[in-house]
Amino acid sequence: MKVALLRETYPGERRVALVPALIPSLAKQGWHTIVETGAGERAGFPDAAYAEKGAEIALSRTAAVQDADAVLQVRSLGANLEAGRDDLNLFRPGQVVIGLCDPLGQPQAVKELAERRVTLFALELIPRITRAQSMDVLSSMATVAGYKAVLLAANQLPRLFPMLMTAAGTITPAKVLVLGAGVAGLQAIASSRRLGAVVQAYDVRAAVKEQIESLGAKFVELKLDTADAEDKGGYAKALTDEQVQRQREQLAAVVAGCDVVIATAAIPGKRSPLLVTADAVRRMAPGSVIVDLAAERGGNCELTRADETVVENGVTIFGPTNLASDVPYHASQMFAKNVVTLLQLLTQKGELVIDLKDEVIRETLAAKDGQVQPPRLREMLNLG
Amino acid sequence: MKVALLRETYPGERRVALVPALIPSLAKQGWHTIVETGAGERAGFPDAAYAEKGAEIALSRTAAVQDADAVLQVRSLGANLEAGRDDLNLFRPGQVVIGLCDPLGQPQAVKELAERRVTLFALELIPRITRAQSMDVLSSMATVAGYKAVLLAANQLPRLFPMLMTAAGTITPAKVLVLGAGVAGLQAIASSRRLGAVVQAYDVRAAVKEQIESLGAKFVELKLDTADAEDKGGYAKALTDEQVQRQREQLAAVVAGCDVVIATAAIPGKRSPLLVTADAVRRMAPGSVIVDLAAERGGNCELTRADETVVENGVTIFGPTNLASDVPYHASQMFAKNVVTLLQLLTQKGELVIDLKDEVIRETLAAKDGQVQPPRLREMLNLG
Repeated sequence: MKVALLRETYPGERRVALVPALIPSLAKQGWHTIVETGAGERAGFPDAAYAEKGAEIALSRTAAVQDADAVLQVRSLGANLEAGRDDLNLFRPGQVVIGLCDPLGQPQAVKELAERRVTLFALELIPRITRAQSMDVLSSMATVAGYKAVLLAANQLPRLFPMLMTAAGTITPAKVLVLGAGVAGLQAIASSRRLGAVVQAYDVRAAVKEQIESLGAKFVELKLDTADAEDKGGYAKALTDEQVQRQREQLAAVVAGCDVVIATAAIPGKRSPLLVTADAVRRMAPGSVIVDLAAERGGNCELTRADETVVENGVTIFGPTNLASDVPYHASQMFAKNVVTLLQLLTQKGELVIDLKDEVIRETLAAKDGQVQPPRLREMLNLG
Repeated sequence: MKVALLRETYPGERRVALVPALIPSLAKQGWHTIVETGAGERAGFPDAAYAEKGAEIALSRTAAVQDADAVLQVRSLGANLEAGRDDLNLFRPGQVVIGLCDPLGQPQAVKELAERRVTLFALELIPRITRAQSMDVLSSMATVAGYKAVLLAANQLPRLFPMLMTAAGTITPAKVLVLGAGVAGLQAIASSRRLGAVVQAYDVRAAVKEQIESLGAKFVELKLDTADAEDKGGYAKALTDEQVQRQREQLAAVVAGCDVVIATAAIPGKRSPLLVTADAVRRMAPGSVIVDLAAERGGNCELTRADETVVENGVTIFGPTNLASDVPYHASQMFAKNVVTLLQLLTQKGELVIDLKDEVIRETLAAKDGQVQPPRLREMLNLG
């Protein structure tokens, strides 16, 4: 069997879906790896490194894809709306495509891939069950983004993060507020603590209080009445209008006292909750920094603009949408480990087998035999 | 007595020589503070914050200086060669000027200030004795620069700094080499360790081995024969040509194995030692990062260009010359504490007294009564 690794075509994307170190374990399972030339270049993995581990280097994208049984990429069509379309004519019917494709945000892209009759695995649909953790790309990328968000903030802040007791007096530690204590939020807490900041964190799910505290942060408790704020996947659910209003008011007071806000609160497939109003930003000290990791879906801060840096009353608001790509070496290593684990689940005795009895395979399968597969997506697309 | 705080005019300078919190303690000693409007703006201290602590806001630089007995600035003429010249006509004979002025690098600037008959205290000349630690601006700014250099490197690196054990495999920690274990180097070690990196450090002074190790870094021992590499001020001395050659060769092997080099090795008043050759850089992995804090005096790396970012074979080399200014809030707080302590040393019972029997005052005094004071500078200027 042959697996093709494609060079990413999304603007600014530096990650790659497979790293050289994993080629031998694929080979053991019967996979011959073909690498489109330059695929790993921006992540720090030159062609030679892949070749050394036994991969074949294809000098064109067409050559890489044409004989492949499976194709690996970080961003398939839905997650790469313009350049991703060029791949449609390249893929062969029946070919397995594994990548991110934003199925809940761009379901029509899944439909386009389905019409091309590829067998599409949408990495966003990996179920949040223990067995699938090792394939959960959203979690591993959130880990990287949470870390990197803290570095962005610390690098911009006119203050030091750690407390220092020096001959020139005592420097008080930076005060960081993390909004949303999912994987990115918890990593942001841990990274801020590493750098010596005093950290508070807020999440609508009271169940995460213990996790927040175990990382050395203070859990911000608001009076909202949200016993039921977590869905069965462990993600946050939406609140009522009245709860939202009280949440924003109470948060504004906390935000005003902080130097840095790392915002990570997301609701899958929906607009991100607006937690920090423009008015709350105006109450922050000049020089304060907000890194809004929810920017792609509208942001947790009212002033966030996706992929732009906004400065308002001296407060800098970053709205990065692809932060993991800025730590491309390790992000690719983790991404690749996730993807290879999934590919191995699809491999039985040297054969590519799509076993729909397997929950992970069934839930992640977005398109097959010309049909969009997940009932949720079929509903969104009115496919009955 | 009146002390004037000036707005900095050096391009990009964000620090300010006095922060509002210290105004009351100056007042207690009999100092009335006059602040040139906007002086603290870029550091996060608006005029209103100074006024609230009792300062008078002067609407022009001339108004701020004209009645002042002492003038505080971060960068006086030698450390601000172009715009600093405009201050010459502003200063009154007999006026005390306290600031950085690069006396060893730009002795002729001290001469110009001497000719204007100001009483100049050059902060670079603060002696490295225990009693003067609380006035040592070079140390406090080096603390900030060492921290910030690590953030710059971490933010640029395509890898994570900490070791992470995740469901997507184990991320190995970044390998950092710190060159020069003065104040900046030690802070760079501490900050890299905070972020989870594995750190090695090199210094010609074997005496600092213990300090390096106490911060959790490994001391790099080279075979050079340098028993006598520390001068009486605790700074490093220059090596012989043969020692230098052996040093570079042995360091190249260490550098090749590192992801990040933070270079801080300096010899006061001389060109910085060249420790990392272009060839050593070529042996580093693509994506590696060098932050050369010695850039202002030629750099520890052969490829460094002051205030530029050089990319060579995928290795990024930063040559910042004013890094403390990029953490302006806390850098200003520390700078101000140092300067106020010096000013208090010059104050006796509500009078400005220049007591030359005091070692700190005598050594820091660069110009008085029309004469350049320090014998070292007089020699450099051929003033006999």
